Amino acid sequence: MNRQNLVENIRRKKSFLCVGLDTDPLKIPPHLADHPDAIFEFNRAIIDATAPYCVAYKPNMAFYESFGAAGWDALERTIAYIKEHHPDQFIIADAKRGDIGNTSRLYARSFFEHLDVDAITVAPYMGEDSVTPFLGYDGKWVILLALTSNKGSHDFQLTEDRNGKRLFEQVIETSSKWATPDEMMYVVGATQGKMFEEIRKVAPNSFLLVPGVGAQGGSLEEVVKYGMIDDCGLLVNSSRGIIYASNGEDFAEKAGIEARKLRDQMATFLN
Amino acid sequence: MNRQNLVENIRRKKSFLCVGLDTDPLKIPPHLADHPDAIFEFNRAIIDATAPYCVAYKPNMAFYESFGAAGWDALERTIAYIKEHHPDQFIIADAKRGDIGNTSRLYARSFFEHLDVDAITVAPYMGEDSVTPFLGYDGKWVILLALTSNKGSHDFQLTEDRNGKRLFEQVIETSSKWATPDEMMYVVGATQGKMFEEIRKVAPNSFLLVPGVGAQGGSLEEVVKYGMIDDCGLLVNSSRGIIYASNGEDFAEKAGIEARKLRDQMATFLN
Repeated sequence: MNRQNLVENIRRKKSFLCVGLDTDPLKIPPHLADHPDAIFEFNRAIIDATAPYCVAYKPNMAFYESFGAAGWDALERTIAYIKEHHPDQFIIADAKRGDIGNTSRLYARSFFEHLDVDAITVAPYMGEDSVTPFLGYDGKWVILLALTSNKGSHDFQLTEDRNGKRLFEQVIETSSKWATPDEMMYVVGATQGKMFEEIRKVAPNSFLLVPGVGAQGGSLEEVVKYGMIDDCGLLVNSSRGIIYASNGEDFAEKAGIEARKLRDQMATFLN
Repeated sequence: MNRQNLVENIRRKKSFLCVGLDTDPLKIPPHLADHPDAIFEFNRAIIDATAPYCVAYKPNMAFYESFGAAGWDALERTIAYIKEHHPDQFIIADAKRGDIGNTSRLYARSFFEHLDVDAITVAPYMGEDSVTPFLGYDGKWVILLALTSNKGSHDFQLTEDRNGKRLFEQVIETSSKWATPDEMMYVVGATQGKMFEEIRKVAPNSFLLVPGVGAQGGSLEEVVKYGMIDDCGLLVNSSRGIIYASNGEDFAEKAGIEARKLRDQMATFLN
């Protein structure tokens, strides 16, 4: 999906919400746990209930890999389901991959040809030739880790070089020579608050994927205040706060209600 | 597998060779390509032919993921095969994972409980809470990316902070507070040559996983000269140079010959 279509969806649905499909079989409602296809059934119900209120889904690969081949199979069918029933959704594989060139090319093939998602999250540590193999697929995106939402983001991402430039700034500046803002986004955690001002100095036109609203404690208001640009430029993700809103038979309905609340907040910011 | 057992295997087999199982269905011999279980059959033959000459196997996840659930299944059976028939081999999942804490915990579960490998490669960019969930499994290892073998390693890993400390040095120094050298190794590319001297200043007692000998052009002699310590402290990986040594029906035999050549070189360095 290209940027124009993504922005049109955001304006039409008055939402820049991304729902994180971090489906943990240990957390899904008890009445579903014995279902032979529990992961897929949970996802399907969550997707149908939340689709009116979001523009993107982000399955995190870890949750599917933890069940090996069966988990991978459930993910493949989840993605196929979204594409068939909700084709206006932008699908992000949260994979945080990145390897030497010939290996990153294989990952690109897995995610963009086999799974056929719109975007993949990539880790920058290994540099240019670990990232560029993901580029050049029409309508596909790289979402590079810049300033993440977790506590450990302070360990290396804030290290200043001799000129006072922090590593996340160097990652954004250097990588912006590899790709245009129409094919690369950045991950910036909602927990980083005012840092969005700093991010916009080095990435004025890029979309940002923003995890950390909800369970991780980030503020949507701050993210919008410091991070929003003319065509929105934000995809704000919530996972646990939506998909585990209820542990009962009403889990999908409650997920829809939580997604709708976030959409209603977002609509006021978009007006 | 703990450090003592690993070192015993290295001394007994006079080898610190790791064979990279980067099994690409587009590169396996034509006579195998139509086999309904081609990836596993290729791996099985390569493993049986090379096991006398190596102490470790390193499947790179990208190659298996590129075939979705079927590829994951072939990997699971490959690992089970090694554990059953060659239980003295150290198995490394080359995954370069790393995510926020609760997600890294799931990856740890996938790799250490489900696949039951001995070690996983982890990317350091997200810091402490992305790495520590992989620690604390008895006899299991984290292998953290430090200074990789690819050209892009220069983009960020060599960036100097205000005190002249390069990022890879900061990664090693900081992470050495999270784990002992009996549970954490570092990835250092063979292509880095003399940089091994610098690495040994900050990681004097750690095992290093060294890719980049062979197809990527690194020199085994330099790695040994600047990187070897009392109990060896090196696992040198070769992938393409061994597993694709021949494209004919003799592919396994030729792989064995290439592995044996490297073992013979290694034996002279160990004496």
